[in-house]
Amino acid sequence: MSDLRSKFMGVYEQLKGDILKDLDINLTNGACDWVAKMLDHNLLGGKLNRGLSAIDSYSLLKEGKQLTSEEIIQISSLGWCIEWLQGYFLVHDDIMDGSSKRRGQPCWFRLSEVGKIAVNDGILLRNHIAVILKQHFRGKPYYVDLLELFNEVEYQTASGQMIDLITTQEKDLSKYSLPIHRRIVQYKTAYYSFYLPVACALLMAGENLDNHANAKDILVKMGIYFQVQDDYLDCFADPQVLGKNGTDIKDFKCSWLVVKALEHCNEEQRKLLDENYGKDDEACVAKIKALYKDLKLEDVYQEYENNTYEELKNSIEDQETKLSKAMQAVLKSFLAKIYKRKK
Amino acid sequence: MSDLRSKFMGVYEQLKGDILKDLDINLTNGACDWVAKMLDHNLLGGKLNRGLSAIDSYSLLKEGKQLTSEEIIQISSLGWCIEWLQGYFLVHDDIMDGSSKRRGQPCWFRLSEVGKIAVNDGILLRNHIAVILKQHFRGKPYYVDLLELFNEVEYQTASGQMIDLITTQEKDLSKYSLPIHRRIVQYKTAYYSFYLPVACALLMAGENLDNHANAKDILVKMGIYFQVQDDYLDCFADPQVLGKNGTDIKDFKCSWLVVKALEHCNEEQRKLLDENYGKDDEACVAKIKALYKDLKLEDVYQEYENNTYEELKNSIEDQETKLSKAMQAVLKSFLAKIYKRKK
Repeated sequence: MSDLRSKFMGVYEQLKGDILKDLDINLTNGACDWVAKMLDHNLLGGKLNRGLSAIDSYSLLKEGKQLTSEEIIQISSLGWCIEWLQGYFLVHDDIMDGSSKRRGQPCWFRLSEVGKIAVNDGILLRNHIAVILKQHFRGKPYYVDLLELFNEVEYQTASGQMIDLITTQEKDLSKYSLPIHRRIVQYKTAYYSFYLPVACALLMAGENLDNHANAKDILVKMGIYFQVQDDYLDCFADPQVLGKNGTDIKDFKCSWLVVKALEHCNEEQRKLLDENYGKDDEACVAKIKALYKDLKLEDVYQEYENNTYEELKNSIEDQETKLSKAMQAVLKSFLAKIYKRKK
Repeated sequence: MSDLRSKFMGVYEQLKGDILKDLDINLTNGACDWVAKMLDHNLLGGKLNRGLSAIDSYSLLKEGKQLTSEEIIQISSLGWCIEWLQGYFLVHDDIMDGSSKRRGQPCWFRLSEVGKIAVNDGILLRNHIAVILKQHFRGKPYYVDLLELFNEVEYQTASGQMIDLITTQEKDLSKYSLPIHRRIVQYKTAYYSFYLPVACALLMAGENLDNHANAKDILVKMGIYFQVQDDYLDCFADPQVLGKNGTDIKDFKCSWLVVKALEHCNEEQRKLLDENYGKDDEACVAKIKALYKDLKLEDVYQEYENNTYEELKNSIEDQETKLSKAMQAVLKSFLAKIYKRKK
């Protein structure tokens, strides 16, 4: 485990301890045990990319200057707030999508003692963010900006989740297109996964977020690319590597793959799509996967990935975009982390 | 409809319009229609007690001075934020409790087109609060206090919901007692229903909440009394009047009634409780209700209500409590509204 990651994990234990201590005073033993287990189940076991990238971004913005131990605790706390936010979304998403596994273990709501209580546990995760921000940032000049940032990004994500759910339930493939896909994933994924870590780092570095619209724009585009990868991996990755089984096809999701299939298919293939997409039946799912192979969507994806990578790299380096060297380094670090990812 | 109530409803239309306009720009038509329907379903049709009492409290704190139209819009917006918070809790609670009806109509998640999407709709309601606070209070000296107040009260409520759910699922009557009941309802109900409206009014009146600990204490006690009424009505009120069917008995809830039954029962009656409480079976529920009658819990409740009313009245008027005349009027107004309520 890298030094940074081990420091980051240390801050997790500290934040968790503070939350449990506070509960211990006011509530019951049972509540403490429940929350401790709930936190570990839903916050650990993942890649921690979002949280760690907040620290990376802050270090790069500081242009290699050694961070003080207070700065490390603070930016790690912000990183964990992002992980807490992600944990909260995933607990709820898994309930709504009826998923079985997450990060190689059963979804939280699938545990027999949890069930529908998971709805409230998601809410508790969300509330912990406000507790952490208050404890570590109250009194800082950017405290209110942090509160607003988390509120805004949470709202964008829930709005993306809403259009995803509404669109999915209409069960009408003719509604699916690249602009709809883009709108869903921009809101549902890009803001919290890509913009939020950098925005946290910028606020801690004393920056005004209004002055970084170009960087935000690039991060959102990167987030869309990230979700296209997610859509691709949902179908084509090894479930063992991914830690879950893909459910996009049976769930009638507006995945990048089905949008591309709709673009490239002939009349007969379209009929096959209409008849088999969104059915909770192994045979139907297999037919869709075979169609994706026939349409060579793996090649279409490789081309998309290469082109998008070049476009993003160019816009980061573009003089017109007027990014500082430090911000260019931040964006390039993000891009390098996701390019050709396998999980 | 009273003038105040009609003005309050006018502000609802304004807040809803602002939220939908914002969606309209960023998202899709389908999303607007969905949110409009979701708001009306989950925010209207109730008594609006919590929202209206924020306005009442503010008027009383202003000692009868005519409110400006800007003040009316602002305190009404805060009142609606409380109603939004309540709507969000109820959407989630109904899912977790498996309820059927709310305010005389089907629960939101029971609508065939909604189902589990209701989890995310609850989140959207929560997010709207931050949008409303930002739009109407950004720049006010108490803006950050408002954000923290709503965060804190939400956390207390979700924590109360957690101990309620955990305790309920243990299915062990020997764990139920008055202190446990008090802890659950204090967190789950009292803070958001009683303290929050007054705290909003105090912040808008420029007060520091730390100077009003005595009032908070009385409001929390009143909230506990309110929840005891709720527990009583869940069993003894006419479902037509209440707008829902009670589910506490079949749901094994730590209701004030079962706590009192445990206090007053003999060995044989305790056996009947153990065998029938928490069963989703009409015959079992009927046996419990008959036992409550045998134990004369209606009389026990009347005595509790009379004593509690006197105690609360005395502590409001007590010189030791050092409440201002205006705050005394606020607290008495709350007490008058709930005393002997039938729904």
